[in-house]
Amino acid sequence: MGNRVITISREFGSGGRTIGRLAAEKLGIPCYDQELIEKITAESGMMKDYVEEKTENIGGGWLSFAAGRDFYGHSLQDDLFRVQTRVIRDLAETGPCVIIGRCSDYILKDRDDVLTVFIHASMEKRAERIVEQYGETDQNPFSRLKEKDKKRRAYYQLYTDRQWGAVGNYHLALDSGALGIERCAELIAGLYRTSAPLGR
Amino acid sequence: MGNRVITISREFGSGGRTIGRLAAEKLGIPCYDQELIEKITAESGMMKDYVEEKTENIGGGWLSFAAGRDFYGHSLQDDLFRVQTRVIRDLAETGPCVIIGRCSDYILKDRDDVLTVFIHASMEKRAERIVEQYGETDQNPFSRLKEKDKKRRAYYQLYTDRQWGAVGNYHLALDSGALGIERCAELIAGLYRTSAPLGR
Repeated sequence: MGNRVITISREFGSGGRTIGRLAAEKLGIPCYDQELIEKITAESGMMKDYVEEKTENIGGGWLSFAAGRDFYGHSLQDDLFRVQTRVIRDLAETGPCVIIGRCSDYILKDRDDVLTVFIHASMEKRAERIVEQYGETDQNPFSRLKEKDKKRRAYYQLYTDRQWGAVGNYHLALDSGALGIERCAELIAGLYRTSAPLGR
Repeated sequence: MGNRVITISREFGSGGRTIGRLAAEKLGIPCYDQELIEKITAESGMMKDYVEEKTENIGGGWLSFAAGRDFYGHSLQDDLFRVQTRVIRDLAETGPCVIIGRCSDYILKDRDDVLTVFIHASMEKRAERIVEQYGETDQNPFSRLKEKDKKRRAYYQLYTDRQWGAVGNYHLALDSGALGIERCAELIAGLYRTSAPLGR
C-alpha cells in the first residue's frame, strides 16, 4: 500500500492551497479545504466564518485569546480543535485525499500512510501573491503576512506543542516561489505515486 | 539554462552525502565532497584533518573557539572560511556539480542557478545509520548526534548569520529516513533535470 493521505501545511501566500488542489487533481483524489471547513461547521454547530478563522489562527493577541477561556482554562476554540481532530481522522480513514492545513500533519501523526508537505516562499513572492489573489488593502502586504504568520504559528504551537514550519515535521518541504506552483504539485503527485510506503 | 549547481546541506547521519553522490551519478556531473576538502587543504596550506573538521564544525565549546582568536578577534578558522568561500565559488563557476555541505548554500546564495537542498531524518533513523556506517563507539549514538548537530549549527550560524536547517533557506527539504536514500536522490535529479530556471 502506498500513502493514502497528503497533508499540506503552508505559509500564507505561498500558494499551498492551489498546489494541494492541483496535486489532488493529478492523482484523481479529493482535496479537503473548504469542504473540511463545512464539515467542521456542521459537526460543531458553530458559525462558518468563526470556524474558518479559528481552526488555524489565534487572533488579537494573548488577552483576547485568554478572555475566551472559562474558569478551568477551557475555550470554545479547544472544543473546535476536538471536532477538527475527529473530522480529519475520519476523512483519513475514509480514503485517499489531500488535506489543506488545519494542523492535519499533527492530527494524523500516528498514521504511517501520510505524506506530510510544507510549502513556503520568500516574503517578496508571498507579498506579490496575496496582492494578486486577495487585492490591495490599507495594510501593507508585508505587514499582513507578518500578522498572519504570527497567528498561524501561535495556533499551531498551542495545539501541537511543535514549532510551526520546523523542517523535521515534514517529509517534503518546497519553496513554491522558486520552484513554481505547477512543479511543486508535480513533485508531490510524483512522490505519492511511487508505491513504496514511507519509513516513519 | 537550468540549474548548474546543487548544494546538499544535511544533518549528521541523514545520508545526505550518499544522496548527493547518487544524484550526481544520475546526472553525470561531479560531486564535491572529499575533493572539496582536498582543494581547500591545498589552497590553505593547512592540515587535511584540520580542514575536514573545521570547515563545518566548531569544536570544544566557546572557550576553545575563542582561544584560537588573536587580539583583533580573528582566528585561523576565519582564514579557512575565506579559502572555502573562494574554492566553492570557483567550483560553481567551473561547471555543473553537486557540492556537499561546507555552507555552500550560503556561499552561493547570490547565484540564481543553484538548487539548495536540505536532508534530515529522525534521531532514531540517524542513530541507526551512524552505527551502521561508522560502527559503535563508547559514546551512545544519540549523544554523538546531539554533539555533532550542536557543532554544525554553531558553525553555520557563526559564518552565515542564518539559522541552520531553517526551511526558508532551501528550495527542497527531504526526510531521508521516511523517503529513503534512493528516492531522495531521484527527486533531486528529477528536479535538476527540469529545465526551467529557479525563481529566486
